[in-house]
Amino acid sequence: MTEYQSLLVEQQGHIAHIRINRPQKINAMDAPFWDEMVRAFDWVDQTDSVRVAVISGEGKHFSAGIDLSLLAQAASGMGSDIGRNAERIRRNILRLQKAFNAVDYCRKPVIAAIHGYCIGGAIDLISACDMRYASRDAVFSIKEIDMGMAADVGTLQRLPHLIGDGIMRELAYTGRNFDAAEALRMGLVNQVYDDHGALLEEVMQLAHTIAGKSPVAIRGTKEMIRFARDHSVEDGLNYIASWNASMLQSEDLKLAMQAHMTKKNPEFKD
Amino acid sequence: MTEYQSLLVEQQGHIAHIRINRPQKINAMDAPFWDEMVRAFDWVDQTDSVRVAVISGEGKHFSAGIDLSLLAQAASGMGSDIGRNAERIRRNILRLQKAFNAVDYCRKPVIAAIHGYCIGGAIDLISACDMRYASRDAVFSIKEIDMGMAADVGTLQRLPHLIGDGIMRELAYTGRNFDAAEALRMGLVNQVYDDHGALLEEVMQLAHTIAGKSPVAIRGTKEMIRFARDHSVEDGLNYIASWNASMLQSEDLKLAMQAHMTKKNPEFKD
Amino acid sequence: MTEYQSLLVEQQGHIAHIRINRPQKINAMDAPFWDEMVRAFDWVDQTDSVRVAVISGEGKHFSAGIDLSLLAQAASGMGSDIGRNAERIRRNILRLQKAFNAVDYCRKPVIAAIHGYCIGGAIDLISACDMRYASRDAVFSIKEIDMGMAADVGTLQRLPHLIGDGIMRELAYTGRNFDAAEALRMGLVNQVYDDHGALLEEVMQLAHTIAGKSPVAIRGTKEMIRFARDHSVEDGLNYIASWNASMLQSEDLKLAMQAHMTKKNPEFKD
Amino acid sequence: MTEYQSLLVEQQGHIAHIRINRPQKINAMDAPFWDEMVRAFDWVDQTDSVRVAVISGEGKHFSAGIDLSLLAQAASGMGSDIGRNAERIRRNILRLQKAFNAVDYCRKPVIAAIHGYCIGGAIDLISACDMRYASRDAVFSIKEIDMGMAADVGTLQRLPHLIGDGIMRELAYTGRNFDAAEALRMGLVNQVYDDHGALLEEVMQLAHTIAGKSPVAIRGTKEMIRFARDHSVEDGLNYIASWNASMLQSEDLKLAMQAHMTKKNPEFKD
Amino acid sequence: MTEYQSLLVEQQGHIAHIRINRPQKINAMDAPFWDEMVRAFDWVDQTDSVRVAVISGEGKHFSAGIDLSLLAQAASGMGSDIGRNAERIRRNILRLQKAFNAVDYCRKPVIAAIHGYCIGGAIDLISACDMRYASRDAVFSIKEIDMGMAADVGTLQRLPHLIGDGIMRELAYTGRNFDAAEALRMGLVNQVYDDHGALLEEVMQLAHTIAGKSPVAIRGTKEMIRFARDHSVEDGLNYIASWNASMLQSEDLKLAMQAHMTKKNPEFKD
Amino acid sequence: MTEYQSLLVEQQGHIAHIRINRPQKINAMDAPFWDEMVRAFDWVDQTDSVRVAVISGEGKHFSAGIDLSLLAQAASGMGSDIGRNAERIRRNILRLQKAFNAVDYCRKPVIAAIHGYCIGGAIDLISACDMRYASRDAVFSIKEIDMGMAADVGTLQRLPHLIGDGIMRELAYTGRNFDAAEALRMGLVNQVYDDHGALLEEVMQLAHTIAGKSPVAIRGTKEMIRFARDHSVEDGLNYIASWNASMLQSEDLKLAMQAHMTKKNPEFKD
Repeated sequence: MTEYQSLLVEQQGHIAHIRINRPQKINAMDAPFWDEMVRAFDWVDQTDSVRVAVISGEGKHFSAGIDLSLLAQAASGMGSDIGRNAERIRRNILRLQKAFNAVDYCRKPVIAAIHGYCIGGAIDLISACDMRYASRDAVFSIKEIDMGMAADVGTLQRLPHLIGDGIMRELAYTGRNFDAAEALRMGLVNQVYDDHGALLEEVMQLAHTIAGKSPVAIRGTKEMIRFARDHSVEDGLNYIASWNASMLQSEDLKLAMQAHMTKKNPEFKD
Repeated sequence: MTEYQSLLVEQQGHIAHIRINRPQKINAMDAPFWDEMVRAFDWVDQTDSVRVAVISGEGKHFSAGIDLSLLAQAASGMGSDIGRNAERIRRNILRLQKAFNAVDYCRKPVIAAIHGYCIGGAIDLISACDMRYASRDAVFSIKEIDMGMAADVGTLQRLPHLIGDGIMRELAYTGRNFDAAEALRMGLVNQVYDDHGALLEEVMQLAHTIAGKSPVAIRGTKEMIRFARDHSVEDGLNYIASWNASMLQSEDLKLAMQAHMTKKNPEFKD
Repeated sequence: MTEYQSLLVEQQGHIAHIRINRPQKINAMDAPFWDEMVRAFDWVDQTDSVRVAVISGEGKHFSAGIDLSLLAQAASGMGSDIGRNAERIRRNILRLQKAFNAVDYCRKPVIAAIHGYCIGGAIDLISACDMRYASRDAVFSIKEIDMGMAADVGTLQRLPHLIGDGIMRELAYTGRNFDAAEALRMGLVNQVYDDHGALLEEVMQLAHTIAGKSPVAIRGTKEMIRFARDHSVEDGLNYIASWNASMLQSEDLKLAMQAHMTKKNPEFKD
Repeated sequence: MTEYQSLLVEQQGHIAHIRINRPQKINAMDAPFWDEMVRAFDWVDQTDSVRVAVISGEGKHFSAGIDLSLLAQAASGMGSDIGRNAERIRRNILRLQKAFNAVDYCRKPVIAAIHGYCIGGAIDLISACDMRYASRDAVFSIKEIDMGMAADVGTLQRLPHLIGDGIMRELAYTGRNFDAAEALRMGLVNQVYDDHGALLEEVMQLAHTIAGKSPVAIRGTKEMIRFARDHSVEDGLNYIASWNASMLQSEDLKLAMQAHMTKKNPEFKD
Repeated sequence: MTEYQSLLVEQQGHIAHIRINRPQKINAMDAPFWDEMVRAFDWVDQTDSVRVAVISGEGKHFSAGIDLSLLAQAASGMGSDIGRNAERIRRNILRLQKAFNAVDYCRKPVIAAIHGYCIGGAIDLISACDMRYASRDAVFSIKEIDMGMAADVGTLQRLPHLIGDGIMRELAYTGRNFDAAEALRMGLVNQVYDDHGALLEEVMQLAHTIAGKSPVAIRGTKEMIRFARDHSVEDGLNYIASWNASMLQSEDLKLAMQAHMTKKNPEFKD
Repeated sequence: MTEYQSLLVEQQGHIAHIRINRPQKINAMDAPFWDEMVRAFDWVDQTDSVRVAVISGEGKHFSAGIDLSLLAQAASGMGSDIGRNAERIRRNILRLQKAFNAVDYCRKPVIAAIHGYCIGGAIDLISACDMRYASRDAVFSIKEIDMGMAADVGTLQRLPHLIGDGIMRELAYTGRNFDAAEALRMGLVNQVYDDHGALLEEVMQLAHTIAGKSPVAIRGTKEMIRFARDHSVEDGLNYIASWNASMLQSEDLKLAMQAHMTKKNPEFKD
């Protein structure tokens, strides 16, 4: 496995555990972070033995979002022509977006385990995950508004699919904090656990359950749900029919059926 | 009315009651079921005196989903060429999808009354209904993942419009059971009643209420909500303007207005 | 400021307060109302010093929806040719839709403060607002079904983005009343307050908070959320990258950053 | 093969030849025609040994379009309520559209061989075919405008993909005649032949050529071109990748490759 | 009729003739032009007796495009904040776009008669018309590239629907001149006439022909072709079915049918 | 510049010339080709001094398409499970598509200069270029059909935007050869030159012309045309308004304007 600086990347059985690893900086997302996210999730995507990924934060918090020094540095790199600066900014944003697109488009489910601060860019990140779970101490905020900017790495595009449009706008316009209980009520997280330890234990258990399912079926299911988000029901139905035209010829169906008959757990290949 | 084998189809006043009728097989969906669904809902759609449909299950359960013998039979019909098998599978899936498209595209509202097991293909079915109500004993599961396959008759396309994307993925990846109370919390069902009897009574009462409204207005409302699901707000607004260009010339408006003035219940034509 | 007949339009600091002003008619939406809405929200949009708008109802209710005399008048204007009537009706609907499109497309956030009746066309209106708050006495109903028609000024297109599809259809098919507590549970309103006084106070406080944020960032955020509703995640990501290409060159970022460093409240230009 | 009244349906080797067969009525499209088209193209679609279809007209002309007696009959079936009439008309149009959708969605290529009149509904029909060839005597006209109506069975939707938008509108607004030479220049037909005999001979030769290709590859190619017409390039690329995931496992590739190596003609299974 | 400064607006029978009227400035599009275009085409749209519009240029040329003094003036109105300038520019562009959207969305056909220079913004304008005809002396150029900018009032969006994508890009990247003969070959104009006099005579004759058709049918046809440009074939088919649900109840069908039977010219109401 | 094996990559002033460089294999596209295309066009995209790219073939031909040994090799890498094979094939296709997406999404115009064979995958490649020019000896063929497969790296998605849908299908179904003159008639190429020498000279001259324009304006123009291909006119208009909000603040406009006034050639920065 290649070297990482701002992440900790481990494989435990079929589960990849990716930790944001700048605890002394509240896991602020610095320049290496954005590149390493692409690298880490490409690795998750490409590595057959990895079936599920969990993302969490080292130390006391999940993440405080983008490192402000990165914004300062971007500002200092501007030239004298507004048009060319605009092109440069545009491409920078597209490059940052790639980090979380790598999560969204990863063929394997990605679960976020959130404790402590989950602020600004961290909301963009968890919005790109498949599912989110939190400990009671989690604190969330769409902080970009207080930086004088509209969030541009995914929150405004992906979060409305997770929570109601009305509460979405209140949070995005005010940047106010909200806690785990409110996050649960609005559907942002699926479950709240007592503390960081319980959270990780339960999330790992869930990851383990998913890793035991047919990888072919899990990957197809993720692709279909993601596709359905952006297309009509009819296009989605046509897509799954074309997709399953080959996937239903997989041996996993036979294995699953036999397991069902014999009441045993099936063992699927990667 | 034509003969049905796996369904019971009745008309009570303006209400069609369609019951899945294989109680000894937990209402598993066999070959005749899929064809009869198309037939039954074409009949609902075409029959002017039918204004609302209710779908429920005979016996102790709503339905255990697709009959596994049907999958086995499909598997045995495969030839030696993978490409031609793929074409055959694709067309089979499209054919099965037609059964629940017939519910979704039916011009009249369809209400699901769910008790006992509602598993696998049964989730695909209720996702295509307009509204869902359950009794306390209902148990739900997106079971396809445990058959080694991605659900392909509508759950992955339609369910995300009913429940949050986050809980959607948890249920689809794990295939875990959930009960009526959780279904209510996530918005899958609108109401939970104490038992099967209370459920049917309340659902029939609701169907009766809807049947008393202007059929022209109800059909237009369903078409608009369905269309809005798959199109932009702007396209939806343009569509209703074109639609109502003729429908507001219907006599139902005058009838409704007179009834409003005289505080009487209007009697609409079919 | 120009004259209004069916609205009261005031500016308080950076906040525009727009009141529906026909209390003796339960704020029913008459002919002047629809034109004045366009005018009022054009003014909100164009006036730099206005950063947020609040909409509420004078007297005991928010609004009873479209004035029935307007429908009667439209009916009396019909000619003898069904085709030409249809064209006229279509254009009338498109003209009415403009009133609430002006709210939806307004570049500044619009907050609805709802007390008493919020019926029929009033639901179309609040569906086009950014956020909704209610007092405990509020009563809601998608009343169009009882006029013998499908709602055609936005409810059926915008409301499904705010509440679950299942409860949406129940309310649209039955036209039944629901109260503030149910509206809160389904996500239609973000918060319920004890009475009209508390409601207005809290909504004004919220408007004040939003007015203190960078206007450039707020306007960008609203545009992005609205765009995301009608486009794919990918198109939305591309759009924000192009948008922020210029907006991140605004001085508001520097102001916000300095304020962040010095722990002071930033003062943004209009 | 089932009985046909307004069509002649024959199979010659791998080619289905479908002839509009009301020569004494200039092949006007009567009630049986519309149903039989659906039936004939379902048969083409389902019958493995049919690989290509040709559609032409018996007698001196291709077709004069919809039979006016059909319109008269539809008019006489109207009731007293404008709204319910509108619903009936809408469904009738959707039913007629099915006849030409059956051509467009047929998995096998459909070639139109056009001589003499090709008027009104006949333009809607040939617009739904894959390719069009004409003899020098062919005369075309988008005649619907002279019936006081906008064409509603496909011309206005499909023809702009075949010819330029500018000439499209001229033809649709004026209903003027144009000949085979002009049809060739605007891209409506691919080739013009001297007379009906030469036309049929060449079209049959072309059909024969296509029938010699891999049926799996031909069907995939048609599906992809049709899909591309209605979707973004990106969605199209994703679709072909999913489609070919199974189709490239077909034995036809090996057969084609061997034929290529040995310079022989491959013999593909149906 | 209201006063115009940069346009000449006349009605001749059912035909509106709109002339760009700054011949001493090669009909360059100044500030009043953009507002008056909206006004003129709103008038065309609203005035029942107008059935077709023709647009041409006074003097020796059609138009040299946007008046450069307008650009200079816009530049001088810029403030010190790049973000706020960007918002202002964006809204200005959207306002200019409205002038040609008024042509595109006008319910009646608009025919461009082009002689002499047709440069820059003039290409944006004719791209929004239904059809284009030219005299032999016409000279075209997508000149914006030589102003250091991408065309932003419609050429890049609408022209690819009229001419091939390949030649489109050559013209947009080089800004080179092309003449009427080349415009005809690429499908930009439908016909080329010898001189300005013959051009106007023929275009007026064409307008007269179209004005003689059913206005209900013409307006429906334009709406359907425009809609088809931006939607899938399937959405287009559904739209025309809903539209014609009322329009086929118009008396124009009966009039047209009677005229057809009696071989007389029908006289349609406006 | 990095090393290339199957390409020759040169920079001449502002022009990148990329030559397919396997003349002894008729420039068949082998494994290195596909990776190097991504690398070469990333370099074109990123290198400010490159403003236009030209792609041509070394030796006697442009390219014979994909190297058949690559297909054979892919076939030999298949495992025993059809489902997992399908996933592998799908990802391989997506990876190959990236090579030509890199051309399509490259911010700078790409011109294809075609001589000799342009077969199979070579059609996919030139379909992704901005413009195409050929010498008289060019021979084209959508050859994939004779490999027993539907083309899957872009021809079926992009070519219909360049040539008519009718001739498109004839070429895709038959795989027949066509020459430069026919390619010109159908709009596939913009111009035909006498021989390879004249072709390269003229294409280089064209590239030189484009390189002299404002790079900011050229890049914006390409982005807008590409976007328009896949989106509605309305979305395209909104996009250019947001884009030009910053680009019209570029100094290139002032430079262009001054050059226009002084009749000199402007010198734009990269």
